[in-house]
Amino acid sequence: MVTQKPAIPKGTRDFGPAIMVRRNYILETIKKTYQQFGYLPLETPALENISVLTGNYGDEGDQLLFKILNSGDFLSKVDKADIDQGYKKLLPKISNKGLKYDLTVPFARFVAMNRHEINFPFKRYQIQPVWRADNPQMGRYREFYQCDADVIGSESLICEAEIISLINQILNQLGIHDFILKMNHRSILAGISEEIGAPDKVAVLCVAIDKLEKIGQEKVSRELEAKGFTPNSITRLFEILEVSGTNQEILSKLSQLLKKSTPGTEGLKAIQQIFAYADNLVIGDHRVQFDPSLARGLSYYTGAIFEVQVNNQEIGSIGGGGRYDDLTSIFGLPGVSGVGFSFGVDRVYDVMEKLQLFPEFQNTQSQVLVTIFDDTTVIHALQIVRELRKQGLTVEIFPDTVKLKKQLNHAHKKSIPFVIILGPDEIANNQLTLKNMATGHQTSQDLNTTVNLINSTQSK
Amino acid sequence: MVTQKPAIPKGTRDFGPAIMVRRNYILETIKKTYQQFGYLPLETPALENISVLTGNYGDEGDQLLFKILNSGDFLSKVDKADIDQGYKKLLPKISNKGLKYDLTVPFARFVAMNRHEINFPFKRYQIQPVWRADNPQMGRYREFYQCDADVIGSESLICEAEIISLINQILNQLGIHDFILKMNHRSILAGISEEIGAPDKVAVLCVAIDKLEKIGQEKVSRELEAKGFTPNSITRLFEILEVSGTNQEILSKLSQLLKKSTPGTEGLKAIQQIFAYADNLVIGDHRVQFDPSLARGLSYYTGAIFEVQVNNQEIGSIGGGGRYDDLTSIFGLPGVSGVGFSFGVDRVYDVMEKLQLFPEFQNTQSQVLVTIFDDTTVIHALQIVRELRKQGLTVEIFPDTVKLKKQLNHAHKKSIPFVIILGPDEIANNQLTLKNMATGHQTSQDLNTTVNLINSTQSK
Repeated sequence: MVTQKPAIPKGTRDFGPAIMVRRNYILETIKKTYQQFGYLPLETPALENISVLTGNYGDEGDQLLFKILNSGDFLSKVDKADIDQGYKKLLPKISNKGLKYDLTVPFARFVAMNRHEINFPFKRYQIQPVWRADNPQMGRYREFYQCDADVIGSESLICEAEIISLINQILNQLGIHDFILKMNHRSILAGISEEIGAPDKVAVLCVAIDKLEKIGQEKVSRELEAKGFTPNSITRLFEILEVSGTNQEILSKLSQLLKKSTPGTEGLKAIQQIFAYADNLVIGDHRVQFDPSLARGLSYYTGAIFEVQVNNQEIGSIGGGGRYDDLTSIFGLPGVSGVGFSFGVDRVYDVMEKLQLFPEFQNTQSQVLVTIFDDTTVIHALQIVRELRKQGLTVEIFPDTVKLKKQLNHAHKKSIPFVIILGPDEIANNQLTLKNMATGHQTSQDLNTTVNLINSTQSK
Repeated sequence: MVTQKPAIPKGTRDFGPAIMVRRNYILETIKKTYQQFGYLPLETPALENISVLTGNYGDEGDQLLFKILNSGDFLSKVDKADIDQGYKKLLPKISNKGLKYDLTVPFARFVAMNRHEINFPFKRYQIQPVWRADNPQMGRYREFYQCDADVIGSESLICEAEIISLINQILNQLGIHDFILKMNHRSILAGISEEIGAPDKVAVLCVAIDKLEKIGQEKVSRELEAKGFTPNSITRLFEILEVSGTNQEILSKLSQLLKKSTPGTEGLKAIQQIFAYADNLVIGDHRVQFDPSLARGLSYYTGAIFEVQVNNQEIGSIGGGGRYDDLTSIFGLPGVSGVGFSFGVDRVYDVMEKLQLFPEFQNTQSQVLVTIFDDTTVIHALQIVRELRKQGLTVEIFPDTVKLKKQLNHAHKKSIPFVIILGPDEIANNQLTLKNMATGHQTSQDLNTTVNLINSTQSK
């Protein structure tokens, strides 16, 4: 047997118990709110056919797909000549499956496959890991969870307002109050493209201004110049993007600036309508900010786009989404519009840890540890464990007959609030000795009284 | 844009809402019981280094690993000569990661990596998918969930009794009463090997008799003969395995038969002790059956082994496990014994569906659908949705202004028990019309009364 130094692949993580409890708190909060809004659960496999995955995330996204080697002799259909052509040509001959890159494309694939059984509009949520062969760095992993909510089969802007309401409610429940939900519309970006004299370059424009926060105006300008934008059009672009004020002020200024553009005018009208709906739907304040410079990288968005940022946290966005009018058509189902949002649970976690927003978690750990005095008392200890569990308590038993001190120390390290000590005297008198680990206080009483004591004296 | 017929890889599945609700019911039941026994949650990545995965599952298992192609130019370190040597030689040069095959080996890897932070004995549960490039067939998938509970760092047989108790409690809660928990001990199999004159062939013996139920005695005999067992030893083997009666009868007969074998005697003593513990720990009856022919395929088991079967269901086992004394030593942590159990949730699901053990699920779907009368009433409808959600109801709004009949039909298809109709009259009178979808009955009242009606009249 060869001993090896154990390691996990870079960009992946183990989640030990302390982290799991906190992650589950976030996931449960998100899940409950998704359910309260009528989204239904869906899960799709980690594995997808390469043909489903490629072509939806842009060239850069395709590069980041994890590919699975075909099983068995993957070289059986490969010629020498294939290998001479390099790895890109070889790839489709040795791999036909990959790991999913997001939850939206598999969702579109599911909808297209099950179109006859689905009642539209179809609202689903999906909480699963996705994989990207990205360069791991602070807050960016190769395997991470997404939490998506989408509705497909309705063009109504009420769906967008629902998403605003959803985001607001979830973040409020998690205690994250100092956030901004940025919104824009791809038609407004198309309008800006028209207005600056580059109507056919909206895709390039989106990719460039998506980097604005990261690399700054100067570098974006240079990138746009390299892509054929004139200096005049770039100047005009930043004049438009610099428009400031309240949402209503920005909307009315842009309405003037883009009044000659049909898509621009339509996009602004849509944003106005979404805000009006949200004003009547969101519980409490909503922190939506119209931001004409928001672009989002993904190529499949066609309408409203969203992004959530937490103020004063250098962590990028904690979620994003948008409307896609044509995602299912690549799977043979045209004319079905959808809109959705995705939380990045890892970044939500990091923000909550930094801002100390996690409540104290106690109940997930055992309420009481039953210790074993010596070999003669084991059977009695097991019977006590059985009775305590019958009454619904979360109980563990220390399995080895080691010194009591070591057993108490184990309870202490695991933050178990109570320990039951059960020696020959206690057994003879039909009593249990209960030690409160926080106070050190010990009392002896019968089993039912012990259960009551544990249930009533939950350490805070 | 090229239209493609959407499909998922063979052996994988989508879980739509109706299935998800049932799966979650099973997973939540298992999870809660694991927690009540003091197991703590753990998750490990889907991706593991190939070096961690290989060598633990036998040759056959290694063949079934899904391997991930290295990112970027995976041919950069490959010579022409490597390719001539065939795919097995090429494999390690183009792939250094794979998908996990079970949850036990990654758990052992985690324990070895975190040995200094872990409080032993360490009890963890883990509910995650695993992947096997197996030939898909009825009840066997390439991507499926395992639900594991393990304790590591104690040799106490109380741990085995806890697992018996755990299995019993979970299956009782799920309503699966007609099951058998088969148990054996690898030392008893070693004893049988000794007794039949093949002490060095216990591993071969395990692999062969593991197939007994599937392929029958004759084929197993032929396999053993081919592996060098004498006809005498095979005859003797089946004499021993045919011993029948109650657990105590089989134990005492085998004690006679294996009395000359040290491991055999020790294994029988261990089983006896585990049963004595379980008698005092399990709530209600326990359905443990000592079965000397139970072998389990996996090579890392060294002590007690478990397998759960449901009677009269031709579905194989719904779970299994055992003790492993040396699993962490390949990761540099010797001398740490562990024991665990794993439920196969897909098979549990199939059994429950066949036996109609699922309760009716209602609460996961919306309690009420708010309809939209026309464009002039949208804002009012949104306000009603907001108020209902504030009061904790699960509410969805039909987003489009289509005919009321179509909206009612949507509620009917989704089994939403109530619909709110909100026309100009209702708005003028500050009333809501509530339609009970089961009875067709309609009433009009104010919002608070409506909430009370919905909460009190949950259709059964």
